[in-house]
Amino acid sequence: MTTKTQHGNFFEDFYVGQELVHATPRTITLGDVALYTALFGSRFAVVSSSPFAARVGLAEAPIDSMLVFHMVFGKSVPDISLNAIANLGYADGRFGVPVFSGDTVSTVSTVLGVKANKDGTTGVVYVRSRGENQRAEMVVEYTRWVMVRKRVASSAAPDTVVPSLPEAVLAESLTAPFHIANAAYDTRLSGNANAWEDYAVGECIDHVDGMTIEEAEHMMAARLYQNSARVHFNQHVEREGRFGRRIVYGGHIISLARALSFNGLGNAFALLGINAGRHVNPVFAGDTIYAWSEVVDKQPLVGRSDVAVLRLRTVALKDLPAAGFPLRDDAGAYLPNVVLEFDYWVVLPTRLACR
Amino acid sequence: MTTKTQHGNFFEDFYVGQELVHATPRTITLGDVALYTALFGSRFAVVSSSPFAARVGLAEAPIDSMLVFHMVFGKSVPDISLNAIANLGYADGRFGVPVFSGDTVSTVSTVLGVKANKDGTTGVVYVRSRGENQRAEMVVEYTRWVMVRKRVASSAAPDTVVPSLPEAVLAESLTAPFHIANAAYDTRLSGNANAWEDYAVGECIDHVDGMTIEEAEHMMAARLYQNSARVHFNQHVEREGRFGRRIVYGGHIISLARALSFNGLGNAFALLGINAGRHVNPVFAGDTIYAWSEVVDKQPLVGRSDVAVLRLRTVALKDLPAAGFPLRDDAGAYLPNVVLEFDYWVVLPTRLACR
Amino acid sequence: MTTKTQHGNFFEDFYVGQELVHATPRTITLGDVALYTALFGSRFAVVSSSPFAARVGLAEAPIDSMLVFHMVFGKSVPDISLNAIANLGYADGRFGVPVFSGDTVSTVSTVLGVKANKDGTTGVVYVRSRGENQRAEMVVEYTRWVMVRKRVASSAAPDTVVPSLPEAVLAESLTAPFHIANAAYDTRLSGNANAWEDYAVGECIDHVDGMTIEEAEHMMAARLYQNSARVHFNQHVEREGRFGRRIVYGGHIISLARALSFNGLGNAFALLGINAGRHVNPVFAGDTIYAWSEVVDKQPLVGRSDVAVLRLRTVALKDLPAAGFPLRDDAGAYLPNVVLEFDYWVVLPTRLACR
Repeated sequence: MTTKTQHGNFFEDFYVGQELVHATPRTITLGDVALYTALFGSRFAVVSSSPFAARVGLAEAPIDSMLVFHMVFGKSVPDISLNAIANLGYADGRFGVPVFSGDTVSTVSTVLGVKANKDGTTGVVYVRSRGENQRAEMVVEYTRWVMVRKRVASSAAPDTVVPSLPEAVLAESLTAPFHIANAAYDTRLSGNANAWEDYAVGECIDHVDGMTIEEAEHMMAARLYQNSARVHFNQHVEREGRFGRRIVYGGHIISLARALSFNGLGNAFALLGINAGRHVNPVFAGDTIYAWSEVVDKQPLVGRSDVAVLRLRTVALKDLPAAGFPLRDDAGAYLPNVVLEFDYWVVLPTRLACR
Repeated sequence: MTTKTQHGNFFEDFYVGQELVHATPRTITLGDVALYTALFGSRFAVVSSSPFAARVGLAEAPIDSMLVFHMVFGKSVPDISLNAIANLGYADGRFGVPVFSGDTVSTVSTVLGVKANKDGTTGVVYVRSRGENQRAEMVVEYTRWVMVRKRVASSAAPDTVVPSLPEAVLAESLTAPFHIANAAYDTRLSGNANAWEDYAVGECIDHVDGMTIEEAEHMMAARLYQNSARVHFNQHVEREGRFGRRIVYGGHIISLARALSFNGLGNAFALLGINAGRHVNPVFAGDTIYAWSEVVDKQPLVGRSDVAVLRLRTVALKDLPAAGFPLRDDAGAYLPNVVLEFDYWVVLPTRLACR
Repeated sequence: MTTKTQHGNFFEDFYVGQELVHATPRTITLGDVALYTALFGSRFAVVSSSPFAARVGLAEAPIDSMLVFHMVFGKSVPDISLNAIANLGYADGRFGVPVFSGDTVSTVSTVLGVKANKDGTTGVVYVRSRGENQRAEMVVEYTRWVMVRKRVASSAAPDTVVPSLPEAVLAESLTAPFHIANAAYDTRLSGNANAWEDYAVGECIDHVDGMTIEEAEHMMAARLYQNSARVHFNQHVEREGRFGRRIVYGGHIISLARALSFNGLGNAFALLGINAGRHVNPVFAGDTIYAWSEVVDKQPLVGRSDVAVLRLRTVALKDLPAAGFPLRDDAGAYLPNVVLEFDYWVVLPTRLACR
């Protein structure tokens, strides 16, 4: 018998202030980008075309915001969520410097809070993860909280510490590492004529299309990010589990919803912040994902006339078209088809920047 | 309600002379090449090996002809065929300068013809699409015609304009951007001993192998090309549709047939022209594709002793081996297993160029 | 009718001393690496991160040992194993210079032995394959033997020649093209704290996790390597065959077992030699692969204090967890769930090299 294998941390292993340096640093390449395109079909021009990326002041097409997020997130799984029952939420997410092919990302997490659950067998762990490039520049950082199994039910509960989390990232704290000369952003090539000014708070957009998920697809995606959470990969075990089948990585749905949102938000080319996120129901291979978005807020960026931000709430649904913007039932509970509610800031060119 | 989403053009939206600048410019990378190889298994040496590509006068391995075609075609889908019922045919296709990884392709289409159908609910639109690289050099251009839904059945029929299309691209108009020194082309490494002279007009070749298609594969391929046609992706809708399931992108079959044709045509390393193409029957995941080719014509190229061209008719079949070269029944109708008839020019080295 | 297609060699076509120059040279790219990561989820830091690869003395992240092997192996299939009934074994495998993206590999094989089987319809062919880069440097070479069909049952049996094969590659003959400065190897980033000294001969490691295989995955992998063996791809034929379905390429299981072995052997970042390998039972899509490893031997490398080698026996299982290290029944026969027994040398950093 050996103790060389990792079985992940249990609730008792976490303490406030703990720093977790996660393995495997990952050089992101154009190969990863091609797979991400093949898996989600995103069509945002800035990430698809280096000449178009030059129009927003970048040397070449950057790595898609959510691909960066998944790479950074994936590293944290073996240390944080291998024994997790559920990924409960995200908050206070910020995107930093753009990532380009050839950059290497790594992740360090800090435990912000712990709270034993009353059932005695689980607890909630709050962690802040910071993804960095090879120059130690922040590429994305965010807080998430997960429900984790205890190793031993009888172990003593730690002092409860629940971190104070902002309801949303303040628009004035966002940075947009893009610079667009007047009229440099060509909306014929981007596929959508709408600038930032064309969106109104309260406006809801049905992203129309639906995308069915296959087992091979969600497993290839999770492995690409080196996300090793077991529930995604092992049908031999999951067949006996809660759902009888493998569960799709929640982040897969964020990427699908984001790709679908191109139809209606085609100029929202990057995420700048993540305010909140919740995986409401599990998703399985065979499910078809639809999405709609509401413009929750819109703000300028300090000192900028070329770009500005929209706060979006994007809702993903399984096997239910997004017409009518379904979300909750009359009693206020999520509809069973709702799988994701995601609240985030996106950057768009202003009319001044568009042609 | 918002009008920010694209729902595609309907028959009434097209008029002769109309120019459509398609979104999303796309930088093609070695990542795309790897996915294309993984999806189709093509083994042509020129596109697989940069040292071998040097033997035909290229600085590095070029992007496969059909991958270029799919990338250019994919961009035209949101504007031309999102509401199409069927892609009826291709004609007058020409390949231009080679594409290399790092090049960015974009597509502009011009409407050549419109013709209302007698049923009152659909019409045929003829468009010529031109794919360009970042230097505005033509990489591939072709005409296709599609049957498109009308928005309103009662709308007036436009004047019928049907463009004159050549039965085939003239061999003397083809350009071969390859140059092979005498005996530079090594047929041991290319896997096939036959030079252009070894093929005879009328010769038929059974490509022997069969390849079964999975849902994940054809969806990944179509998304890689940013081809957003809905029938490929949404099982929730298609389950209620004509066929009860997702339809494989017709171009997927062209690429499979082309990859299968390596066995028998291993030195036909690039397409120079597309004379005609027809998707005869739909293909679904689970179908196994076989292919055979007939040499319809063979021609030298003006002023060239190193390369020459074959005109091929390649027929793809589902769930039927190609032995015996099945195509039509006694009444002249396509057999139900025939899924593609594709007429095109390929370039091969001459004996002088081969060792 | 044409004779231009290849139908593969039959037993009668092989003779001792025969040299087979295999088609298609293949430039390996970062796109191939991304697909390999997406298909297997390997997390070894040296192949995942160029900055980490610099810690072992490499200019950038090298291509994973087994991806190199599969590329070299794939080329040999059309000439050696297209008509094979079974891949019987591997021996005397050595890895040479590291391969980097942009390198082009090609393969030449030499027939070492032939032996007709008593059934009169098949024979065993022993071949040694050598994979080279574009500078003719050896990247991997190995001997394998396959059972091949005879073209004609009545053909005369050749003189039997069975090559002498080593039971294992001698540790003192291995070369490790890596150089680690004292304490340069960061075990926090590699995800495993154990140096070479921490492993004991006889130690068995359960790699814990299981990975279910999908049809799209194993076909994409085999096509990526341009491995054209028909049994992997054609459901229309295989449905009538021995097993009623497509067979997963045996090498796929080696790569899955290797990726799973990261959990327990996270610092075994490259293979240096292959002693023996046997595909014990066939694997099909839907099977879940588990793995365990035994440390069979451990040896220093001549003149090296930074790295040393472990001889491992890795056993892969289908639909059976590896706890208890299942292998054979009481009568000494392989258990039906055992699919692979693979005996090989891996390189690890010593304590001196680790921090």
